[in-house]
Amino acid sequence: MTTQQELIDTAKRITSYVHQTPVLTSESIDEIFGAGIHLKCENFQKMGAFKMRGATNAILSLSARERELGVVTHSSGNFAQAVALAANKTGTKATIVMPSSAPEIKKKAVLGYGATVIDCAPTQQAREQAAAKVQEETGSVFLHPSNQIEVINGNATAAMELLGQVDNLDAIFTPVGGGGLLAGTALAAFRFRKQVSILGGEPEGADDAFQSLIAGQIVPVENPKTIADGLRTSLGDVNFPIIKELVEAIYLVSEQEIIDAMRLIWERMKIIIEPSSAVPFAALYKHRDKFRNKNIGIIVSGGNVDLNNLPF
Amino acid sequence: MTTQQELIDTAKRITSYVHQTPVLTSESIDEIFGAGIHLKCENFQKMGAFKMRGATNAILSLSARERELGVVTHSSGNFAQAVALAANKTGTKATIVMPSSAPEIKKKAVLGYGATVIDCAPTQQAREQAAAKVQEETGSVFLHPSNQIEVINGNATAAMELLGQVDNLDAIFTPVGGGGLLAGTALAAFRFRKQVSILGGEPEGADDAFQSLIAGQIVPVENPKTIADGLRTSLGDVNFPIIKELVEAIYLVSEQEIIDAMRLIWERMKIIIEPSSAVPFAALYKHRDKFRNKNIGIIVSGGNVDLNNLPF
Repeated sequence: MTTQQELIDTAKRITSYVHQTPVLTSESIDEIFGAGIHLKCENFQKMGAFKMRGATNAILSLSARERELGVVTHSSGNFAQAVALAANKTGTKATIVMPSSAPEIKKKAVLGYGATVIDCAPTQQAREQAAAKVQEETGSVFLHPSNQIEVINGNATAAMELLGQVDNLDAIFTPVGGGGLLAGTALAAFRFRKQVSILGGEPEGADDAFQSLIAGQIVPVENPKTIADGLRTSLGDVNFPIIKELVEAIYLVSEQEIIDAMRLIWERMKIIIEPSSAVPFAALYKHRDKFRNKNIGIIVSGGNVDLNNLPF
Repeated sequence: MTTQQELIDTAKRITSYVHQTPVLTSESIDEIFGAGIHLKCENFQKMGAFKMRGATNAILSLSARERELGVVTHSSGNFAQAVALAANKTGTKATIVMPSSAPEIKKKAVLGYGATVIDCAPTQQAREQAAAKVQEETGSVFLHPSNQIEVINGNATAAMELLGQVDNLDAIFTPVGGGGLLAGTALAAFRFRKQVSILGGEPEGADDAFQSLIAGQIVPVENPKTIADGLRTSLGDVNFPIIKELVEAIYLVSEQEIIDAMRLIWERMKIIIEPSSAVPFAALYKHRDKFRNKNIGIIVSGGNVDLNNLPF
């Protein structure tokens, strides 16, 4: 498992490429939740999500020769933009395989960061095949959005900052999709302040992490159905052992609970959070009796939403 | 004109009742505007707008006897909530006259802060008559949302903070409605850093401040038509002399320019700003050639929007 020194080195490595994001609080939110809530605003991170941290660390961890050959990933979401921007900032060539179903605006953003976009059919198999072909033809290094230790370590820096910004947190909540943010957050807490409970929020319609913790082994999600588009992926063999060992609990929430929490944060905090980021708020609200008067950190994972397609 | 010492006293008076709001920046916004933009986020202020500052200072400037009798105002917008919350926090009785056309959600917010709400017909005359009646019957002190020096001085504290948070600002932009924020901002700059240009953004459909500066006297707006609901009011005899002496220019923008700027800030900065707050961004964008490579502060006046009724 990543050491404290490795996390410190990671934070140093990426520091000039990412924002130290602010922590926001709100009296009215504290009243509603009955606890002290501290929002670590990764929605204000470059490209609008924490993914910038892991992508940057993964690229900066490569050798000069590897960076010359470039990096490749497949993603229709925030990791596509994160790799594209991190590659741009570090002078690395990037190829992003994007399913034909990805919104045009996201493709434009990736192209705007100077990456090459390769279209493919909107299936997991087509995405993997297209990425493998790029690897083969160019020698590019494949980057995984959540199941790669450099990405997880990069993600950990958000919680490291939060622990430095807020004293005496009793718990930190994150959303759970592929597991990269939850694992990184758990690592940060384990290495820097062991007495913090690490908790995940997950949609009922994509409950693989919840099921995996019960089964003691990875239970991939099939046909995930949730508005939290960042959380439709499953845990992997790199992050699951970390989550299994260090995470205290994962709480499930319904679609309506996610939408209500998202709206509440927009209205009360005046910040734009994406549906995935609303999931830990929904989980905390649902179980607020358990956390009464506690100090809770929430990693607000991102703020990339389509304003033409809001759920309220 | 308010002295530097009076502004310092004002800031001290209200400090424990208001947030010192953060200043946000964004590389992508700077690129789009061709300047260094610093957002003073009063949308994160208590009750969601800078109005909390002026309302709090006005109430805290009253004698104990006056506060016992209470305060009254008429407003359908942010000042209603600001007076209600400031009164609540300072243990003062507040009566808010609200036109029957005010959204139910705003009435509920005011009631939630413990103020008394009196309904009236949705005309200026009915509002003033109802407020006068409350004054007469209860001895309450009338608070004006923009044309009262204690309110203007309270508003000035936002720019005072901004000048402390950001060095070397070349200009500060605010929206112009009743003129209370623009006058306060101009006072702060005049008393604490004279070399900053103070600029206002105003909707074409409510251009009374623009016309008043040309005419050299107050030209009230008739039938204001703008989505920027906080800017439909006219300058007053207390703030106009300050604006006339200290404000460098007022720029007009169209409704579409306001909507585009609002959307741009939501999408790029992940913060919720109300239409009125988008006006200075629209003005700055329109005249961006004039401000190329300058350091610009913008007072983001508020973030209270109806999510069921967005202009995009």
